Amino acid sequence: MSLLVQKYGGTSVADPQRIRHVARRVARTRRAGNDVIVVVSAMGKSTDDLISLAHQVNHHPPAREMDMLLTAGERISMALLAMALHREGTSALSLTGSQAGILTDAAHGEAKITEIRGTRVRDGLQDGKVVIVAGFQGVDPASKEVTTLGRGGSDATAVALASAHRADICEIYTDVNGIYTADPRVVSGARKLDEVSFDEMLELAAGGAGVLMARSVEVGRRFGVPIHVRSSFAEDEGTWVKERTMEEAIIRGVAHDTSEAKVTIRGVPDRPGVAAALFETLADARVNVDMIVQNVGEDGSTDISFTVPQSHADAASRATDPLVEKLGAHGFAVDSEIAKVSLVGAGMKSSPGVAARVFRALANARINIEMISTSPIRISCVVRRECVEPAVRALHAEFDPPVITEEVGADA
Amino acid sequence: MSLLVQKYGGTSVADPQRIRHVARRVARTRRAGNDVIVVVSAMGKSTDDLISLAHQVNHHPPAREMDMLLTAGERISMALLAMALHREGTSALSLTGSQAGILTDAAHGEAKITEIRGTRVRDGLQDGKVVIVAGFQGVDPASKEVTTLGRGGSDATAVALASAHRADICEIYTDVNGIYTADPRVVSGARKLDEVSFDEMLELAAGGAGVLMARSVEVGRRFGVPIHVRSSFAEDEGTWVKERTMEEAIIRGVAHDTSEAKVTIRGVPDRPGVAAALFETLADARVNVDMIVQNVGEDGSTDISFTVPQSHADAASRATDPLVEKLGAHGFAVDSEIAKVSLVGAGMKSSPGVAARVFRALANARINIEMISTSPIRISCVVRRECVEPAVRALHAEFDPPVITEEVGADA
Repeated sequence: MSLLVQKYGGTSVADPQRIRHVARRVARTRRAGNDVIVVVSAMGKSTDDLISLAHQVNHHPPAREMDMLLTAGERISMALLAMALHREGTSALSLTGSQAGILTDAAHGEAKITEIRGTRVRDGLQDGKVVIVAGFQGVDPASKEVTTLGRGGSDATAVALASAHRADICEIYTDVNGIYTADPRVVSGARKLDEVSFDEMLELAAGGAGVLMARSVEVGRRFGVPIHVRSSFAEDEGTWVKERTMEEAIIRGVAHDTSEAKVTIRGVPDRPGVAAALFETLADARVNVDMIVQNVGEDGSTDISFTVPQSHADAASRATDPLVEKLGAHGFAVDSEIAKVSLVGAGMKSSPGVAARVFRALANARINIEMISTSPIRISCVVRRECVEPAVRALHAEFDPPVITEEVGADA
Repeated sequence: MSLLVQKYGGTSVADPQRIRHVARRVARTRRAGNDVIVVVSAMGKSTDDLISLAHQVNHHPPAREMDMLLTAGERISMALLAMALHREGTSALSLTGSQAGILTDAAHGEAKITEIRGTRVRDGLQDGKVVIVAGFQGVDPASKEVTTLGRGGSDATAVALASAHRADICEIYTDVNGIYTADPRVVSGARKLDEVSFDEMLELAAGGAGVLMARSVEVGRRFGVPIHVRSSFAEDEGTWVKERTMEEAIIRGVAHDTSEAKVTIRGVPDRPGVAAALFETLADARVNVDMIVQNVGEDGSTDISFTVPQSHADAASRATDPLVEKLGAHGFAVDSEIAKVSLVGAGMKSSPGVAARVFRALANARINIEMISTSPIRISCVVRRECVEPAVRALHAEFDPPVITEEVGADA
């Protein structure tokens, strides 16, 4: 007998019919002899509806009350799923994040899970019940205040529960049937991956592959929980995210991201401590910085460029403005019309020349590269926004990812 | 400085505009120097919508999950009201029933409040905040399960909080502007009452006056909390429900109720213990019995009639059926086409002849009386359903309630 965690996203529980469909699927897993913990998101667009209601009464709602409001969403879907399971003859118990012992820090709207206390979940499983847990929410034990986990929070709930309860598998059910070598809406030849390593998935997620957020992959990697990303509308296998993959591809896939903006500070004096001062200031302003590139200038000064989520661009701008004079820089500019394209694959560590092929493929497609950043298993380039789709197609065609593979342990 | 509890029903918080209207009203009360606890119902018809969703996934949803589902309703309205108050510059804190220390028994869907633990509400008030509490919900401290209080639950929450926190007034805001001498939809000349005693209000509520449920009146009476029933859409005073009224009317009003059914057991042997056996059986089946009348028959047997909520009629029928043979009765019948009309007034205790005038007025209107039941301050008659409106009008015209008054302490 296994313990499975199954997470169903908003599309999978968008209406009563789909909830009944999920219930039949869960009931089947339970009847096959498994213990099951189910994590659910709010139904369909209901979180958006609640946010819209909030903005109709207050353009800047207090974060504490926003969390109180939004946590109603999963409360509704989890109770309905429990009812639907009872109709299938499968005993079930729904629990809020707080009841399921999801403890978090105090950061309303973007809380991080700090601990999981498993008593009520464990009791429910021991009573032979399917335990349904509200995703995306927790409680700060110090203040007893309800919190939400922010983007990707339901996946994080699922993977964290899977690790705390030592589940055999964490299944993430979504409306696509796995992780692809590139976004299929951009690359018609994109192929579904059968498996991908945690490290590769982290780079794909950081590069913009939206199916699985980096935060849940990190938890899965830390605690060694295999994650199976699959469709709730189909029976076939999706993509397994795990420690080691059976075959190590040189290139796993191409990800892209159009949600960032680029900030460039020109003519920064080239002396120690300048970058530290800049990025400390940005951290204090709670700006998430992604890529950082420093270009050596000709006149003894340098240009520093970094990317941030577009939603943080204003905050980055406010934080940077006073620093420009203080540092004696020439000026700064924010550019939202950029996009990032990333090539990811654990095999490129030992495969020289991949970077050169990336730059050549983009050059052949007449695409200018504005920033470059690399890790041992990723190459990312910032390009003009309007060039991103041709860039993704060019890289996918150059590497045709799933074909270029080598056996683990082979000589190559 | 006073402590006020204000309860706003679903119609008062049906959409963002109305929530902002309520927020302005609450903010005004707060700015006038009062401490305020606000109790809210779910928005408009949202509880009905949730019930409909539940029935789409399961025709017989488990009560525990139904409570989990329905408590999302007030969670949404209370968070939105807190946001709207912040927009008015008034600091506010929303609390679920559980967070506000509303402890109940374990009866899902119809829980009773057993205790109120006031810490978080008190802390919020001491921090200078308006404290908003979700009506209709609580928590069973033994199982830690969330419960709902059933019909009239939000009013009960408000009056119980008012008594626990020793509030000066409990204001019940609704979509009508007070308690009337009769249902204004039936009697065009019905008048709003300025005040009514707890005892009279209990009889009016039991007689079918739906504005305020008996359970909250009982709590108000037990703890001496004055209740002010008024409209959230108008500024004028509504109806005060309190211990003693300034003037004691002989007749306070006419109430009617079409939600009951009548059960009659014919030819019951007239021996001790028969009624006890019958009503014990009904109590075990959790059937709420309202009026009970035993008519002496001619042949040494009696007929026993009683009324129950129509929703309990099936259960009453199932409980009664086996008893008929056991008791040696002739048979039984359930009649749903009945209605109850009640005349209520504390002054009728000392005013002979009121009952006779009731029967004469109904006879003159050619309305047949099927059952009669009286208390010191009420006379109730069961009539055919189609006669109820003429009956209400006949009694209202006969007594023209607000006119027949006498001064408290006068000789009369």
